[in-house]
Amino acid sequence: MSILPCNNFSLSISSLREYYCSVGSSPVDVINEVYKRIQLDGRDDVWINLRPLEDSLQIAEHLMGKSRDNFSLFGVPFSVKDNIDVDGLHTTAACPTFSYRPSVSANVVRRLEHAGAICIGKTNLDQFATGLNGTRSPYGPCRSAFNLDYASGGSSSGSAVSVALHQVSFSIGTDTGGSGRIPASLNNIFGLKPTVGSLSSHGLVPCCPSLDCPSVFSLSVDDALEVAQTMYASDPSDPTLRLSAEAPLFSLPSLSSDLCVLVPQPEQLEFFDNADGHNLYIRAVDYVRDLGFKVEFFDFAPFVEAGNFLFDGPWLADRYASIGAFLEDHPLDVLDTTYGIVQKGSLVTGEQVFKAQERVQQIKAKIRLLAKEGQLFLFPTVAPLCTVSQIQANPVELNNQFGYYSYFANVLDLCAFSFPFAFYPNGMPFGLTVMAPAFNDGVVAYFAKAFTDSLNSVFGKSRFSLS
Amino acid sequence: MSILPCNNFSLSISSLREYYCSVGSSPVDVINEVYKRIQLDGRDDVWINLRPLEDSLQIAEHLMGKSRDNFSLFGVPFSVKDNIDVDGLHTTAACPTFSYRPSVSANVVRRLEHAGAICIGKTNLDQFATGLNGTRSPYGPCRSAFNLDYASGGSSSGSAVSVALHQVSFSIGTDTGGSGRIPASLNNIFGLKPTVGSLSSHGLVPCCPSLDCPSVFSLSVDDALEVAQTMYASDPSDPTLRLSAEAPLFSLPSLSSDLCVLVPQPEQLEFFDNADGHNLYIRAVDYVRDLGFKVEFFDFAPFVEAGNFLFDGPWLADRYASIGAFLEDHPLDVLDTTYGIVQKGSLVTGEQVFKAQERVQQIKAKIRLLAKEGQLFLFPTVAPLCTVSQIQANPVELNNQFGYYSYFANVLDLCAFSFPFAFYPNGMPFGLTVMAPAFNDGVVAYFAKAFTDSLNSVFGKSRFSLS
Repeated sequence: MSILPCNNFSLSISSLREYYCSVGSSPVDVINEVYKRIQLDGRDDVWINLRPLEDSLQIAEHLMGKSRDNFSLFGVPFSVKDNIDVDGLHTTAACPTFSYRPSVSANVVRRLEHAGAICIGKTNLDQFATGLNGTRSPYGPCRSAFNLDYASGGSSSGSAVSVALHQVSFSIGTDTGGSGRIPASLNNIFGLKPTVGSLSSHGLVPCCPSLDCPSVFSLSVDDALEVAQTMYASDPSDPTLRLSAEAPLFSLPSLSSDLCVLVPQPEQLEFFDNADGHNLYIRAVDYVRDLGFKVEFFDFAPFVEAGNFLFDGPWLADRYASIGAFLEDHPLDVLDTTYGIVQKGSLVTGEQVFKAQERVQQIKAKIRLLAKEGQLFLFPTVAPLCTVSQIQANPVELNNQFGYYSYFANVLDLCAFSFPFAFYPNGMPFGLTVMAPAFNDGVVAYFAKAFTDSLNSVFGKSRFSLS
Repeated sequence: MSILPCNNFSLSISSLREYYCSVGSSPVDVINEVYKRIQLDGRDDVWINLRPLEDSLQIAEHLMGKSRDNFSLFGVPFSVKDNIDVDGLHTTAACPTFSYRPSVSANVVRRLEHAGAICIGKTNLDQFATGLNGTRSPYGPCRSAFNLDYASGGSSSGSAVSVALHQVSFSIGTDTGGSGRIPASLNNIFGLKPTVGSLSSHGLVPCCPSLDCPSVFSLSVDDALEVAQTMYASDPSDPTLRLSAEAPLFSLPSLSSDLCVLVPQPEQLEFFDNADGHNLYIRAVDYVRDLGFKVEFFDFAPFVEAGNFLFDGPWLADRYASIGAFLEDHPLDVLDTTYGIVQKGSLVTGEQVFKAQERVQQIKAKIRLLAKEGQLFLFPTVAPLCTVSQIQANPVELNNQFGYYSYFANVLDLCAFSFPFAFYPNGMPFGLTVMAPAFNDGVVAYFAKAFTDSLNSVFGKSRFSLS
């Protein structure tokens, strides 16, 4: 039975794959539907550069003559954060003066294109991926799919919203300090932040190169894993990759023992006066126990310490090393907030960097001990809930509050998976993030799936309410 | 048949083990013989702090009541570089003002002591392990076991000489930029520079903590492996350790395919007018071919670039971060050369560190490609051959020449094994170093053993010539 794409048709990869199995299905119809949705939604804050419809249709037509069997992501539409190169589309990093037209797609994007996925455009972001809230863009502050008063989260703001609105099946973002997790949480979708170095960063505009990684926004755990595994390649010549013996990295493991989940000691929880968020997290931890997982407390203080190295410490120098020269040459073309943050990196000494890196090694050893029997860490993805205007009035402090449970992940070499849990009384979504030491991407996905499968819920924003 | 220890008795672990199998053997007799040799040799440049004879005898007597089966290194005398803690002996790092008496032995030393080895004292070194030549010590310049006019190499100078003279069976040194290899070469012994993070650096005076590692000086490849494996422990709580799945790391692998050896392109060889050294290296490479190994050229330039980061670049900040405060507080108590080098680290910016670390990642990716089928790198251990007075007249430039083929190893995460090859016309020894990517310690040992077994030679300095 053929299901024609229509406004309330889910764009999850499994739904789309089912559709493509039906007689008369066509990637051209899917592309037309997707562009219709984008027009219908009328959001000018999500896309920086939508590929012209005729160009996307041409890619779809080109696919129609091929066998679906040769393309694991046949006709699956996706969006790409505009700090990642896509052949044929400009890369702006949300800074028009910085814009350039790449001659090749980023490694990860190229692999998706080869698998038959169709990139329909580039999405809004906090300028140079420097921010976690979504408001730091000359293309306008990006707003949640659930409430236009609220920030979408960032820096991969448009990526998350495009997925939540079922405008695309998935999106590729980046994550240095939470950019692949926070907007997932504020838009009721999944955000896989893989182990740094497991997926190529080649073709990403560097933000803080030692910690940058591509990330996946999706409508399900399975979709995120499939997209990540498609992007994965073991290429010894790629300096952004760490080669691991674990393969396939992005697949659900068979776990024999029960997982133990570690949560911060109660007095270490910080919600910045967001009592509803605090309550939701407490409820989530109770729910984890109800699901049969063991829950234990751990000392969260060293994680906060490591997180502060990112936006208030030595790693600012990594940021300055990568985009400082551009900023110094074009101070008027960069947002004041971006400039102010990155410029601080010029004051960092080498001594401070090595001391912090040594301290990070010490904290990582603590984590090895804490997680030595496969323990996972569970956090709220983002502590505060803020409107766009609240953030614009207090852009640095609130951003740091956004990062309280996310900044440290890449510094401490943790992989992470953000997943939806519940809703605030005002209808905004609240998500959780599960983390584990590097190369346990399958394990965090396993937990996210066990948790969210049990919710019997649908994710993203239902288009029934839009149609 | 009992072999009584005497002046020409080899102190290799296998010789000593054979001795201990004989009736009437005793660690007390070995200790007495060892102290007799030290007195006979009359060298005041090797030891900073020899353990009082009666204390060493007490340790030996304590062992006598025990079963040899429970002590893999039963009664094996060893020395420790004086920047590594040994319970009961002061640590000076060759700076008397810095001296302290540790309450516990360094992790690696403690494991050797538990295995029944007897540390008889602490050896001379370039101050704060900052140097490769052995002359930078207030305890006097250390001289080669083969010719007192010539520098012993450093920074683990006394360690290497004590082994070469068969005053001990092995010595524990440290290696940041060649300190565990260069003195091995200039004293005709073996120097294992393990993968950084494979052996604990806990209890070492930090020199450049991100790159420091303990090293082993020995009279054979097998001895070095046994000592290293004894020091090895997988301890997740130790921040200086990287945990690896490879175990046992320090054992000879069974290699099915022929090894391919990579050497610098001929025009990239640099011997600083040491024509004899150049000839010896060419002869060595020919010999490698004769042994049946494949030899290919590779581009050495990125290795030199990485090496320069250590003593003339961003890693000086790591040095400054670890001992800068002491130097600034005690400028008059530190050698001018040491002060001058380390103080430069205060000028390094965080931006420079991150840029260099990113560049290192790029070079490591080149190495992954070069060595992807198990290829090894083969270098002269040290290019120039210098007398003590030559170095004292030109301490920084000649030291950098010493490091030309060693500086880069830890920066590029290579493990290394220095082994003896031949002698200069003047009788000074000339050694080679084989290197491979991290955690291939067994493979570099395999090559060193295959090469040196074929020489049918004895190593160190024969005590027949001394008796």
